[in-house]
Amino acid sequence: MDTERTEIGALGEFGLISELTRNLPSRQKSTILGVGDDAAVISAPEKGLHTVVSKDLLCEGVHFDLMYAPLKHLGYKAIVVNISDICAMNAKPTQVLVGLALSNRFSVEAAKELYSGMQLACERYGVDLIGGDTTSSRAGLMLSVTALGVVQEQNMTLRNGAKSGDLLVASGELGGAYMGLQVLEREKHVFKEAPGAQPDLTGFEALLERQLKPEARVDVIEELAKLELVPSAMIDISDGLASEALHIAAQSGCGVRVYEDKIPMSEQMYETARAFNLDPTLCTLSGGEDYELLFTVPQDRFEDIRNHPMFSIVGHMTEDPNERKLITRNGMETELKAQGWDGLKDPS
Amino acid sequence: MDTERTEIGALGEFGLISELTRNLPSRQKSTILGVGDDAAVISAPEKGLHTVVSKDLLCEGVHFDLMYAPLKHLGYKAIVVNISDICAMNAKPTQVLVGLALSNRFSVEAAKELYSGMQLACERYGVDLIGGDTTSSRAGLMLSVTALGVVQEQNMTLRNGAKSGDLLVASGELGGAYMGLQVLEREKHVFKEAPGAQPDLTGFEALLERQLKPEARVDVIEELAKLELVPSAMIDISDGLASEALHIAAQSGCGVRVYEDKIPMSEQMYETARAFNLDPTLCTLSGGEDYELLFTVPQDRFEDIRNHPMFSIVGHMTEDPNERKLITRNGMETELKAQGWDGLKDPS
Repeated sequence: MDTERTEIGALGEFGLISELTRNLPSRQKSTILGVGDDAAVISAPEKGLHTVVSKDLLCEGVHFDLMYAPLKHLGYKAIVVNISDICAMNAKPTQVLVGLALSNRFSVEAAKELYSGMQLACERYGVDLIGGDTTSSRAGLMLSVTALGVVQEQNMTLRNGAKSGDLLVASGELGGAYMGLQVLEREKHVFKEAPGAQPDLTGFEALLERQLKPEARVDVIEELAKLELVPSAMIDISDGLASEALHIAAQSGCGVRVYEDKIPMSEQMYETARAFNLDPTLCTLSGGEDYELLFTVPQDRFEDIRNHPMFSIVGHMTEDPNERKLITRNGMETELKAQGWDGLKDPS
Repeated sequence: MDTERTEIGALGEFGLISELTRNLPSRQKSTILGVGDDAAVISAPEKGLHTVVSKDLLCEGVHFDLMYAPLKHLGYKAIVVNISDICAMNAKPTQVLVGLALSNRFSVEAAKELYSGMQLACERYGVDLIGGDTTSSRAGLMLSVTALGVVQEQNMTLRNGAKSGDLLVASGELGGAYMGLQVLEREKHVFKEAPGAQPDLTGFEALLERQLKPEARVDVIEELAKLELVPSAMIDISDGLASEALHIAAQSGCGVRVYEDKIPMSEQMYETARAFNLDPTLCTLSGGEDYELLFTVPQDRFEDIRNHPMFSIVGHMTEDPNERKLITRNGMETELKAQGWDGLKDPS
């Protein structure tokens, strides 16, 4: 793809950083000073606003595979997953800082490709890239992003505020990112058996996009503000619906019941899962990386939610903290289990 | 050292994080919410204060060698180098977030050892560990720290405010961290030739401490406040005096003259350098990792600085932005060159 290859050593750390961070625009009034000093500077938010800060690491071979994740998409995704954490606090993202560790198999052009994806995400979400660090690594690529945002004190939404009786609500459709990953893994396997084979990805575009270029639901946060609806608890769905529902339940001291027939899934996700001999429900429960939002609201907000095109009521919270149930399509009750993708499982 | 070894996979990501972040104290009033949700929350600082944010990566084999860096020291150092960046803005450190990527050769006990060093540094500097991420890596250990601090708007000190005629001032003594590294490298070499040989580090304790357990100069920031002295420019010395002096000069559009006989060095550093056949001056100019502060002040503050035990006037800024001079002990003028340690040089 790249016709040019400039070794990173040819520029050095300062050269590379200045190459990557040239002409970074400033979109947020609160950004006083961006890249180029010992630290970035942001002004205090208006009275009544809190600052929220999240941090995520993405490691090659654990969180992504460069065999199918284009660098630009990867940069985009690294920003998005952090912005998603900010959204999960019911906050508005404002700034990001980016740490990049690269082994010497990466060229300056590759680093620029990564950065272009990060800048695209910053543009899309109106956030400023205000700082970071770039260094070499002994092996592989690693991205570390810190995101900042602001939230009205009274709108701040933690994971621990759900009450018995609250509705459990998910945005969007689930399981797509996981199915996208399955498609990519299959084609990687085909390619390994027969190098030179062109991957056959036609018809799976939407699933692939969910996996490779997810979006953070800032629109959901804006919609909640319009509805004047502050969730009692919220989390973003990075490890699958089951894991996140259990987090809310555990941290809120509630039980939870999830109804299989209420879980939102796209027809394409459903059909592809069947074709791959996978249980579509399991893909939504344990698949992860959808970056949708899962939140709880008091029952008296039922009317705001039930026919809203953004939202699906997938269950409700209960009194008994030991209750963790999935109610299947045929009415059976089974244990809701978190078999979510775990960043600390042995990656090999 | 460790008698127990618990595999990280046995706890999983959430288990490890909760093991590592149990009982984290909160020391800063501004910390509203620490570890355990999608993001940490901090309250807006008082009117007139800005927030500063810095981020640094430390990669195994590039920034540290576990053959001689004990994990606890490494955790301590990872926090300190970020706090040093906050100091370099003339700000007060308040919170840190920690990202940790570990390969499966590390045990839970090793991760706890690292964390204990980070917590010790947090205690020493009165900052709160409010969040982060823990994940596996394919190879080695990588630490990513984000530090936050606050600064009075009018005290904020960037790199670009130095003026011609300003005095160039360094805190503490330079070159010690680099000499400590040379001692460790020598003993590593001896050990490789004759495994089982006990390292001979007696008499080098102070240098080793500079390398393995550096401190950030928050006391210098406090002293500047007492003196009601806001430097015109400031940077922390992580890459050697030459590199940092040139950064201030370049970003301020000034020239700079550094006087060899004014560079502060300890007798031990000097003697050890000579014994290693190294030029002590070069160790201070290009050695790096001292984490002292380098700043500029107008000449009319000369009296505040000249006999102050914390400070050494090492040179001054000049009109011509092309002037970058080292004036040697014998009065010769040579080019001041940044041969600083570069995180992007091939680590092998």
